[in-house]
Amino acid sequence: MDDPVLVEVTRGALVESRHRGTVAVVDADGGLVLALGDVEQRVFPRSAVKAIQALPLVETGAADRYGITEEEIALACASHSGEPRHAETAARMLTKLGRDFACLECGAHWPMGAEASQALARSGATPTALHNNCSGKHAGFICVACALDVDPSGYVEPAHAVQREVRAAMEALTGAAHGEDVRGTDGCSIPTYAVPLRALALAFARFGSGRGLAPARAAAAARIRAAVAAHPFMVAGTGRFDTLLMEALGTRAFVKVGAEGVYCASLPELGLGIALKCDDGAGRAAEVVMAALTARFLPLSGEEGAVVESLARPQLNNWNGRHVGGLRPAAALG
Amino acid sequence: MDDPVLVEVTRGALVESRHRGTVAVVDADGGLVLALGDVEQRVFPRSAVKAIQALPLVETGAADRYGITEEEIALACASHSGEPRHAETAARMLTKLGRDFACLECGAHWPMGAEASQALARSGATPTALHNNCSGKHAGFICVACALDVDPSGYVEPAHAVQREVRAAMEALTGAAHGEDVRGTDGCSIPTYAVPLRALALAFARFGSGRGLAPARAAAAARIRAAVAAHPFMVAGTGRFDTLLMEALGTRAFVKVGAEGVYCASLPELGLGIALKCDDGAGRAAEVVMAALTARFLPLSGEEGAVVESLARPQLNNWNGRHVGGLRPAAALG
Repeated sequence: MDDPVLVEVTRGALVESRHRGTVAVVDADGGLVLALGDVEQRVFPRSAVKAIQALPLVETGAADRYGITEEEIALACASHSGEPRHAETAARMLTKLGRDFACLECGAHWPMGAEASQALARSGATPTALHNNCSGKHAGFICVACALDVDPSGYVEPAHAVQREVRAAMEALTGAAHGEDVRGTDGCSIPTYAVPLRALALAFARFGSGRGLAPARAAAAARIRAAVAAHPFMVAGTGRFDTLLMEALGTRAFVKVGAEGVYCASLPELGLGIALKCDDGAGRAAEVVMAALTARFLPLSGEEGAVVESLARPQLNNWNGRHVGGLRPAAALG
Repeated sequence: MDDPVLVEVTRGALVESRHRGTVAVVDADGGLVLALGDVEQRVFPRSAVKAIQALPLVETGAADRYGITEEEIALACASHSGEPRHAETAARMLTKLGRDFACLECGAHWPMGAEASQALARSGATPTALHNNCSGKHAGFICVACALDVDPSGYVEPAHAVQREVRAAMEALTGAAHGEDVRGTDGCSIPTYAVPLRALALAFARFGSGRGLAPARAAAAARIRAAVAAHPFMVAGTGRFDTLLMEALGTRAFVKVGAEGVYCASLPELGLGIALKCDDGAGRAAEVVMAALTARFLPLSGEEGAVVESLARPQLNNWNGRHVGGLRPAAALG
């Protein structure tokens, strides 16, 4: 079955490129509210589920034991741009454990943000694991290991206690088995398990509404959502989609990007969860789809609507600032 | 009509993403040797046709009049990485005209190459138009304007004498009308005209074989191909696909990337031209398709084959250097 075209890229009066994909919007009982394309297909959720992977940070008591702040909880859910505040916040989390970046197992890379990357180069420094977009998540994992009184070393491995906790949370929320047969390795070396897109949407309906979760877990989810809504800069960075959308919508929408064209979201007031995957892995298209779905389901104020509309129809300007085209939701998105 | 899946992106044992697209391989009489997807659809060729756009540089006598070297002709066909040698070579072309980068109308951007970008930032400098990946092409355009004895100013505009020359060359080689109705503006501000993919492939069959071209034009095309084959670093840069492929194959293959998933190629010894477009605009997939087609049509030595195979099946390693997946040609590519 061919997934529908969800996004068109225009240049002048013509469509230059097209992105296909799959969308699942479900309620907390698993009922499909919207299905585009094959919603039973398995997708690697990648970084889109970092907020669910952060549940053990709260549930094990690690966050309270080590005095992890709201800002730091938000960073644990982040694919951040490696700006100074991001790297500093990750370092601070580790300091609270009496540790430093040497125990991070995510690897180092230049900051995702071009300006942050150039600023770091200009300073003569080279990136450390603190600049890795996943450093907050990894610092959170090390907190969990410490709270569990296990050696953090090897915390990225599937058999480590930390990953067992993370996997259990993911299996509970998605209702999907996380077997070795669907296991891949993520960019930061932790396992990622391919689950049906529909199950991923269900996980975010539960994460956003608390429905179907034990009270302690529902409270942990609410605490994480509140942390991200209060510190949207921490989960992405300057000019990034997730930061801009949540700065505009606050607690009304929790959204999180994943690599290879994945996006997940919770719309708590509607009790809905959203999961989408662009077939081709394009992040630019996934953002347009996410913004279009937000506008379709959430009643928005004029100010909120303007932000969401600008994210749903990004304009393309060339190196001289001349307008040359743009991206737009395709007909299938309604 | 749905274009076929041409490339699969794997993670672990699963396919994570898929790229669809269109391929046209034609001979110099326009006969279709291979057609995948809708080869009559119009695509913006973008930078994939820079070598054809460079024909006026030779044909007007500009290259000889200003002593433009083979290396500089290769740069005129480039989407370069903005490495020091690229920027210096573009500057030298302008010096030969008694001009400097102030007359370039392509706009400035940070070098496409991450290392070049970081090195420039580390030096405390900011990019000029010389670092724009199109600076060689633009320097060539200014040479043409000077050879035509017209003011270079505004040379990016469709009505300027330079663009009229460029358009005439493109219309002659593709056989397709370049009307305002199919005009878009490229990243560097020059016009780009959407033409049927099949016509684009025909242009490169002619460009590579000289068949169907007047002797002077065939000689100009051969001179440009020889320049690029002798200086493949100039057309792209360190570690880039076009540079690696042409370093391995020399004059046996002329290949050139364009933005939004376009690739064009000439295989002179076979008299074939290739044009392909990934529907979603993905450059990573376009490279895999180009490498797979090269392997399919050209008989390769062991050494050549190893390079082409590595480009057709790039491996994905994560930030820790751990192998996590890869790209591969899909079944439709044979």
